[in-house]
Amino acid sequence: MTNRTPVWKAIATEIRGEIANGIYREGDKLPTEAVLAARFGVNRHTVRHAMSALADEGLVISRRGAGVFVASTPTDYPIGRRVRFHQNLRAAGRTPAKKVLLLDTRAALEAEHEALHLSEGALVHVYEGLSLAEGRPIALFRSVFPADRFPDLLNHIKEETSVTSALALSGLSDYTRTSTRVNAKLASATQALHLQISEHAPLLRTISINADRDGIPIEVGRTWFAGDKVTLTLSDA
Amino acid sequence: MTNRTPVWKAIATEIRGEIANGIYREGDKLPTEAVLAARFGVNRHTVRHAMSALADEGLVISRRGAGVFVASTPTDYPIGRRVRFHQNLRAAGRTPAKKVLLLDTRAALEAEHEALHLSEGALVHVYEGLSLAEGRPIALFRSVFPADRFPDLLNHIKEETSVTSALALSGLSDYTRTSTRVNAKLASATQALHLQISEHAPLLRTISINADRDGIPIEVGRTWFAGDKVTLTLSDA
Repeated sequence: MTNRTPVWKAIATEIRGEIANGIYREGDKLPTEAVLAARFGVNRHTVRHAMSALADEGLVISRRGAGVFVASTPTDYPIGRRVRFHQNLRAAGRTPAKKVLLLDTRAALEAEHEALHLSEGALVHVYEGLSLAEGRPIALFRSVFPADRFPDLLNHIKEETSVTSALALSGLSDYTRTSTRVNAKLASATQALHLQISEHAPLLRTISINADRDGIPIEVGRTWFAGDKVTLTLSDA
Repeated sequence: MTNRTPVWKAIATEIRGEIANGIYREGDKLPTEAVLAARFGVNRHTVRHAMSALADEGLVISRRGAGVFVASTPTDYPIGRRVRFHQNLRAAGRTPAKKVLLLDTRAALEAEHEALHLSEGALVHVYEGLSLAEGRPIALFRSVFPADRFPDLLNHIKEETSVTSALALSGLSDYTRTSTRVNAKLASATQALHLQISEHAPLLRTISINADRDGIPIEVGRTWFAGDKVTLTLSDA
């Protein structure tokens, strides 16, 4: 007796191949159940079974009332000693961009005082923005810098958007990540709006500290990554 | 003219101190608004303002219809080259424990084949369980090991529950983490049940590979951490 492949499985394999070959791309809507049923000469129940298998694999996402869409492949984002948004994204084969949401100089909050070893009454520069990969928003961030040390930083950020470039223009040629803390959170309404995800979708929130070569902290940052658009990777190779 | 501290702020400071001093502990329900309003001789609006400030700090959690509770402090969990559940938890001042949910030997899945560099038709040992800190569930995990290399591993796990100890009994004295990938996910109904969290609460999911001293992979693991009970920490100091 030979084992025949179930029909739903054969259909799933077919569509998986078409996604792999780029016939259907990230975010594309797949044909309706009725269209696929006609195409494969099966009933809609069988199509649904195949789609449900593909959804379990994370390859497609079913949106109630809207149809079935090809899921996006998460962008790998390395978080080791050298975290550089633009470099990291290019290494992952994605075109990086940043959109400025807020540039401000204000008194440091208590947690910022502590993280940046600031003296009483010190001011900080705040850079809030949206990180994009291939034009798609993948993260919101808030970076805070000691204003005393980098007086012209906000002007440089206006020209460059890249933190690394703006810090270089401010005289800091190199810095490394000294610590990263990662939590999972649910997106707030405004976060969801910026990141183009559902409210209460899962976010990866990192709190990180960067320091100069002498170990003096120069940036404390919070980043909220859309949980299904980014995979944080740590390699100890 | 002197700046007086607003009353709501003074109340928040008072309750913050009582939480810090252990008068109210993790998970405790705070007195009702009416009780606190009477205690401080203010109206309920002022109490609500104080509570809302404490909730913003993450110190308390308001559960609709149930009251305001002292939030739990997330357990710090380092994920560098040497990840050892029992050691890590003890270092964070928490008593670790593991509860076995499944011990099984089965054919390797495709992803496991790849991660563990297995040959065709190889078998793997699977250890699924619940990780606890101070008796509270903080993570679910599924660890997969090459069965050929560690024939008696499951028996050792039955005795030890600690993977490090069970591997040592199987002849592996040391191993290191070669890669970790982190995503944010929403808890499924069964995950929520095990972790004693709400369905659709955020989870940190890690996929990790451990290797022996020669760089040969010996374990591929998935862990689902309750997002508000654990902070993954990476230190590059």
